[in-house]
Amino acid sequence: MNRKYSVILGNLGNTRDRFCSGYKDNPSTMVMLEQAAKIPHVEGIELVGTWDIRPDNALEMKRALAGLGLKCVSIIPDLFADKRFWKGSYSASDPAVRCYALDYSRQMCDLALDLGCDTLNVWPGQDGYDYLLCADYERERAWLCEAITTLAREYPKIRFALEYKPKEPRTHSYLARMADTLLLAQETGRPNVGLTIDTGHAFVAGENVGESIVLAKRAGDRLFHMHFNDNHAMWDDDMIVGTVHSICYIEMLYWLDRCGYTGWLSMDQYPYREAAADAIGESILWLCQFDSILQKHRARLDQLVSANDAIMTSRFLREVLVKNI
Amino acid sequence: MNRKYSVILGNLGNTRDRFCSGYKDNPSTMVMLEQAAKIPHVEGIELVGTWDIRPDNALEMKRALAGLGLKCVSIIPDLFADKRFWKGSYSASDPAVRCYALDYSRQMCDLALDLGCDTLNVWPGQDGYDYLLCADYERERAWLCEAITTLAREYPKIRFALEYKPKEPRTHSYLARMADTLLLAQETGRPNVGLTIDTGHAFVAGENVGESIVLAKRAGDRLFHMHFNDNHAMWDDDMIVGTVHSICYIEMLYWLDRCGYTGWLSMDQYPYREAAADAIGESILWLCQFDSILQKHRARLDQLVSANDAIMTSRFLREVLVKNI
Amino acid sequence: MNRKYSVILGNLGNTRDRFCSGYKDNPSTMVMLEQAAKIPHVEGIELVGTWDIRPDNALEMKRALAGLGLKCVSIIPDLFADKRFWKGSYSASDPAVRCYALDYSRQMCDLALDLGCDTLNVWPGQDGYDYLLCADYERERAWLCEAITTLAREYPKIRFALEYKPKEPRTHSYLARMADTLLLAQETGRPNVGLTIDTGHAFVAGENVGESIVLAKRAGDRLFHMHFNDNHAMWDDDMIVGTVHSICYIEMLYWLDRCGYTGWLSMDQYPYREAAADAIGESILWLCQFDSILQKHRARLDQLVSANDAIMTSRFLREVLVKNI
Amino acid sequence: MNRKYSVILGNLGNTRDRFCSGYKDNPSTMVMLEQAAKIPHVEGIELVGTWDIRPDNALEMKRALAGLGLKCVSIIPDLFADKRFWKGSYSASDPAVRCYALDYSRQMCDLALDLGCDTLNVWPGQDGYDYLLCADYERERAWLCEAITTLAREYPKIRFALEYKPKEPRTHSYLARMADTLLLAQETGRPNVGLTIDTGHAFVAGENVGESIVLAKRAGDRLFHMHFNDNHAMWDDDMIVGTVHSICYIEMLYWLDRCGYTGWLSMDQYPYREAAADAIGESILWLCQFDSILQKHRARLDQLVSANDAIMTSRFLREVLVKNI
Repeated sequence: MNRKYSVILGNLGNTRDRFCSGYKDNPSTMVMLEQAAKIPHVEGIELVGTWDIRPDNALEMKRALAGLGLKCVSIIPDLFADKRFWKGSYSASDPAVRCYALDYSRQMCDLALDLGCDTLNVWPGQDGYDYLLCADYERERAWLCEAITTLAREYPKIRFALEYKPKEPRTHSYLARMADTLLLAQETGRPNVGLTIDTGHAFVAGENVGESIVLAKRAGDRLFHMHFNDNHAMWDDDMIVGTVHSICYIEMLYWLDRCGYTGWLSMDQYPYREAAADAIGESILWLCQFDSILQKHRARLDQLVSANDAIMTSRFLREVLVKNI
Repeated sequence: MNRKYSVILGNLGNTRDRFCSGYKDNPSTMVMLEQAAKIPHVEGIELVGTWDIRPDNALEMKRALAGLGLKCVSIIPDLFADKRFWKGSYSASDPAVRCYALDYSRQMCDLALDLGCDTLNVWPGQDGYDYLLCADYERERAWLCEAITTLAREYPKIRFALEYKPKEPRTHSYLARMADTLLLAQETGRPNVGLTIDTGHAFVAGENVGESIVLAKRAGDRLFHMHFNDNHAMWDDDMIVGTVHSICYIEMLYWLDRCGYTGWLSMDQYPYREAAADAIGESILWLCQFDSILQKHRARLDQLVSANDAIMTSRFLREVLVKNI
Repeated sequence: MNRKYSVILGNLGNTRDRFCSGYKDNPSTMVMLEQAAKIPHVEGIELVGTWDIRPDNALEMKRALAGLGLKCVSIIPDLFADKRFWKGSYSASDPAVRCYALDYSRQMCDLALDLGCDTLNVWPGQDGYDYLLCADYERERAWLCEAITTLAREYPKIRFALEYKPKEPRTHSYLARMADTLLLAQETGRPNVGLTIDTGHAFVAGENVGESIVLAKRAGDRLFHMHFNDNHAMWDDDMIVGTVHSICYIEMLYWLDRCGYTGWLSMDQYPYREAAADAIGESILWLCQFDSILQKHRARLDQLVSANDAIMTSRFLREVLVKNI
Repeated sequence: MNRKYSVILGNLGNTRDRFCSGYKDNPSTMVMLEQAAKIPHVEGIELVGTWDIRPDNALEMKRALAGLGLKCVSIIPDLFADKRFWKGSYSASDPAVRCYALDYSRQMCDLALDLGCDTLNVWPGQDGYDYLLCADYERERAWLCEAITTLAREYPKIRFALEYKPKEPRTHSYLARMADTLLLAQETGRPNVGLTIDTGHAFVAGENVGESIVLAKRAGDRLFHMHFNDNHAMWDDDMIVGTVHSICYIEMLYWLDRCGYTGWLSMDQYPYREAAADAIGESILWLCQFDSILQKHRARLDQLVSANDAIMTSRFLREVLVKNI
């Protein structure tokens, strides 16, 4: 398998939380692009709408990407940082907000087509609810589904990769886990609606990502994109891949291949207090190392996955992990 | 809405855990039936296959139920306590086990028809896995789906209510959450495959049950059955309804009605150290009280759910909860 | 028991998260003070250092508080939003940062004395770590303990109320839970070092707050302060008290009284998308209602807590919760 | 550092859960002893009171251990499987039960002395509570503390290693986490009261074990014993070490050495569906491998722990983990 690595451009920018407004400075888009291009193995870039890409800078961006030999892997419409969407975008109770969310998304689709990018990575982070007995789940989910269906019908050449996450910024997101997002994707009736797995979001959701990949395969081959990071399994810490977990990444790569995934492996971190380019670079190098195990031992992994024998798997893992004995 | 309350018979029996083999004595099936019949509001009984109901005692059971004026609400095939299923039933790697699981389930369907019961509550608790890189999720999920499809085709008059739970006894169950189980139900292509929500299982899965009810509605009206209990949100503690949570039960009842649920409200507890009949009775009385709020304030709840205003909802809840001010 | 209610002033200000830089506007300190004074039952205010209170506005603040009839309940030094503390304050590896943290804290103590306030609510939110094998827990905890000891010795008239929280903004905080913070308080050897329970922090830590109150009592009567809010038990959602949980608040108030707590009940919320004064007001009214149950039924609660009978407790709770049956 | 490995004898016996009464057969104590002696690196055995060791078989056990060259590392009084303790042992409301728990523990201390074993591993698993407002935390914790103090005073040559666990079999245990158990140990005023860390219990408690080891050191060098296993961080799955987590075990071994721990590394698993001796053997081999990294790179680890640089630590870990690149 030939892996293709990419990164979300904003990972190289400022970091903050609800307490501190900025741990770093925010470099310009072009400076971040140059930094990204220097990270070993990086061939693609994801751009956040409005922040990185707008009608007014599309031409400049196109030239910059070409100049650096980078591909635009996805555009991520900003449905989460814009204050207008504070109570939802596609599922907002206010029809004017829903309408704006659609129009803004169309603009992003047009930009994607203009940049030769076939994927819109859609994370409707504000679509959800915080308190019990305060939201009409039926009506709001229907609105969300309608909006995605409309976009997918209007832009048949764009793949809409829905990114799920159980919570944050809302206490409950509508696209919370792999399976509920697959239900919505199927409900659109469009083949160009699928999913993005963010590994950290899945950990927080209590998912075993290897199994989530299989679910997406069985529901019509709907895994469109992958975002990689690690965390302590309780919150979306957006850490360097491999600094908490190890084995589950080997399992993910195994199932990505078994399920015929040929898309990008994109890094999505939030290096609060770390040198961003280095942190992203580490994640890619961890994935390369995990991948080397898979490439070398694929037949044995096939046997292990079939054998259902924890002792055998443990022996294998001891053999391939831990270098110095 | 007229509520129908029932109980799983085994709730009245012995309790144990992996450390202690028994905190109580195990009364006979008939003694438990009589105890169940005396719990206020109980009109229905769920029977666990093999334990409570077998071909050899079906006639006796029929007479006993009739004598006590109880309806058999569901039969729960024992796919979890039988050692044969220690590594799975419908999805076991061993074809002889899969075959036995099917034959045993057919026997349970026949008994259900014989007892005038239209629901098989299927909890394949052993179907899942414990360790990473030790199971072929794709193949095993396919087997699980095939078995359910086969049964649903052979028994079109039986409703197969699949009960999900994220873990225990396996570290990962295949039917883990509402949405993945809906995907499987849809994949069978049979209208008589649906779901059971066990409220405690859903809490452990991180679900908000009100929202899960809506998911089942949108996926073809597939909510067939409800099991009620409470827990501390981290494990399936199987406690008395209302002893930890309050508001979410009001929300559940609201959404059950909004989604047109007309099935049973069945108690499924595991009263380790409590008088069983009393503990079950408490759960029903809590639900009756939560229901009284709903019955009296339905129009206002409709407004609140539509209004998306946490302050208004909080004011309402303060008004209806807390008696003495 | 006569309850005293207060609020952290900043709760009335802007809200944001790492995605969106502001959901609201930020009123001036004096406007917020006036809003706070109008919330029913509020008699005290907690001021965040630097934000609300500095040497240059101390006199103005004193007059404003006097004019509004409000007491300054605590000062909270800003050890979390100041970028200088991004890798810790009292436990930072950089000795200049540790020194600055101490000096800044002394300034806050002086201001407290000046305002007639006897409590410094210390939340060293940045003191902790994110990654494994990246921090010298022994050395850093020793520095943290030394700094608190120094302050407590220098300011014997100030009570240092240490506020614990398991994570956020770091993935691991040094003051993570009730018991480890008590160990540190004891280690200082000073009677003026104790704790603040933030109910939401405790929920995220997996604590039952009633029991945490008892731990503080047994460790030298070290519960100095209380911050109230609610959440969905997985993250510090900082919601209105009583909108998720009910019974545990009754239990908390019971144990606060049993353990002789006479301090303030302070509201600490983060009303991302709600009208702040109303959200805080709701929390206080919920606590008043829960308190009314306790006041009326204290003798019965004493019996229940002693009886160890879940059925009896459930019956009682059904009686006092749920108004309309 | 010279590591000493041991195992709890019962790990080799039957496994069960609350659904299935037995996945395996139960070999005799002597057969299990022989199996344990054959596991590579095993030099010590922990015996569960009543099950494995009683006054009537003490002589036989002594001879068997001598014959196999095994040391009795600890005796674990059975405070969890005996139905008498269903509502607590040392903290039971019934004074007769408390009295019996003490007498039984004395018997176990006598047996320990007789076997030349200096450690009682005390896991009071039934001491806790299930429901809110059903237990007098103050009184029951005082009873628990009194009992431990009494035993520690009567048996000054025995080290009482208290094993904590947040829940199971109760929904809340009194000895829940490292720090609260240290508070109790300190409260006894006896130097022979300390702790056992069970790594899986600590994971479920949300602890980072490296940090927990430091807490025990700072509270008077009270880490007496270690139980090793792995889990998926949500429940006490009692799995093979290293099959879920990797890096945190390296960190644990590092901090054990830094804190001068010279005790046993004991395996405590519950191999539900695995060949027990093999599963235990795997855990030891994983620990040996993790240890080899530490032995070879101790100076570098010292630097990393001091440097507070996630990139540097990540680079090191990539270098020592993952063999094949």
